Amino acid sequence: MTTQEVARPFEWPVRVYYEDTDAQGVVYYANYFRFMERARTEWLRSLGVNQHDLLNRDRKMFVVVEMNTRFIMPAEFNDELVVTAGLAGRTRATFEIEQNIYRNGIDGDLLVSGHCKAAFLDADSKKPLRVPASLFEGPQS
Amino acid sequence: MTTQEVARPFEWPVRVYYEDTDAQGVVYYANYFRFMERARTEWLRSLGVNQHDLLNRDRKMFVVVEMNTRFIMPAEFNDELVVTAGLAGRTRATFEIEQNIYRNGIDGDLLVSGHCKAAFLDADSKKPLRVPASLFEGPQS
Amino acid sequence: MTTQEVARPFEWPVRVYYEDTDAQGVVYYANYFRFMERARTEWLRSLGVNQHDLLNRDRKMFVVVEMNTRFIMPAEFNDELVVTAGLAGRTRATFEIEQNIYRNGIDGDLLVSGHCKAAFLDADSKKPLRVPASLFEGPQS
Amino acid sequence: MTTQEVARPFEWPVRVYYEDTDAQGVVYYANYFRFMERARTEWLRSLGVNQHDLLNRDRKMFVVVEMNTRFIMPAEFNDELVVTAGLAGRTRATFEIEQNIYRNGIDGDLLVSGHCKAAFLDADSKKPLRVPASLFEGPQS
Repeated sequence: MTTQEVARPFEWPVRVYYEDTDAQGVVYYANYFRFMERARTEWLRSLGVNQHDLLNRDRKMFVVVEMNTRFIMPAEFNDELVVTAGLAGRTRATFEIEQNIYRNGIDGDLLVSGHCKAAFLDADSKKPLRVPASLFEGPQS
Repeated sequence: MTTQEVARPFEWPVRVYYEDTDAQGVVYYANYFRFMERARTEWLRSLGVNQHDLLNRDRKMFVVVEMNTRFIMPAEFNDELVVTAGLAGRTRATFEIEQNIYRNGIDGDLLVSGHCKAAFLDADSKKPLRVPASLFEGPQS
Repeated sequence: MTTQEVARPFEWPVRVYYEDTDAQGVVYYANYFRFMERARTEWLRSLGVNQHDLLNRDRKMFVVVEMNTRFIMPAEFNDELVVTAGLAGRTRATFEIEQNIYRNGIDGDLLVSGHCKAAFLDADSKKPLRVPASLFEGPQS
Repeated sequence: MTTQEVARPFEWPVRVYYEDTDAQGVVYYANYFRFMERARTEWLRSLGVNQHDLLNRDRKMFVVVEMNTRFIMPAEFNDELVVTAGLAGRTRATFEIEQNIYRNGIDGDLLVSGHCKAAFLDADSKKPLRVPASLFEGPQS
């Protein structure tokens, strides 16, 4: 595996529907967070994580503890976006994910740039759990 | 109690924010269903029902099983709406609620007219429960 | 073209994310209307209609004027749904669309059954326009 | 006006409905951004700004250009929240707003802490405009 391959983030396509826009004619700012979570969910799925079973069978879950976001250019109704997710750092109990949103693919305009810190919790006690080291060495690599 | 009083529905005010609108410049159609549920929740609260305790302590819940809606005129960003909820019928396992959405009070324009059929369920088995007869004779009357 | 082909509705896949669910553990009822609109938008796209250009260039738009919906079984987080859209009737100024939501394809459980009446409007005057007869004889057939 | 008064942020109550929660049983993270915008909108209204007229008559609008948020404790269905908004800084073209979300008033648990940078734009050209100096010396003070 080359550095190039390691650095390449997961990509997930998102189409903008009316539900995502607001009366300013562009995507409502809170909805980019929905798009970013879809990409994180699909990225975890690509790494072998089924969050439904994780929550309902194992009683564990991921939660976002911090989210820093720059809104650079707006997306419009009907746009085809690509949302990325890539590991940017790890501690015992948290991991950081870089997420960008582009119009028409990662060579298109960068619209939103996000940095997400997530934790892994016991769903009942809400206590933090150690993030499994194997998580980011899953099926995808 | 007079017929007049019985017929008078519960009213709940809703302000329209950007989150509720879409790029057509008006409230996105699915969001009227959010408004109607806020009014049902507050109506139930006025009748003495705390849905949080009902679900988490008693493991019972209300669900919508049918919703028929006419969209008559659109609401816009910043509008002050009034959403009503009034009992329109009952069977052992379901009850029907008439809901209207007006701009600037119930003497204003009628924007949306809805008819909701709800059921009362065991939250674990998802089996229907008999709707408590006392429910609609609660604190409000 | 056979009757079989005419009767076959358009199908659109929808994955259920956390954003779509609520604390009852299932999809929040208003969000099925978002799913149904995604299917209508993609169905119109398959018929050659670009709603972005329609609104911004031609100043015309589709709006939902009536929506009748039965909620039969709930969808859960992570479910793979199929949402259908098929023409069910037409007048000069409106058209009716049958929409069903299934889990795991149209041979799976029927979760939601909807009937949508839509109109075609001048975006500025909000006056109804005649629905183009050619619309439903577009590229798809 | 004392320093005390200047420092006191605007407060806006928000009730948590089913629409705001997800299958993890708590408020879905993107929805806190909706709550924070409601507080900003009402804060601007208290300062004499009608965003509807601003957009439709004056063709000017506010947009969020950066949003940094920590999610400290989750809010649940039925919670009564208070969302604050207070001016934290200003440049010619942007202004910064501190926003906190508390359960049961500002003496209750701090759930979410946000820092929002907003800009003031020409709605047609999308060019930045100078933020009116008078804005934050409005009716409220």
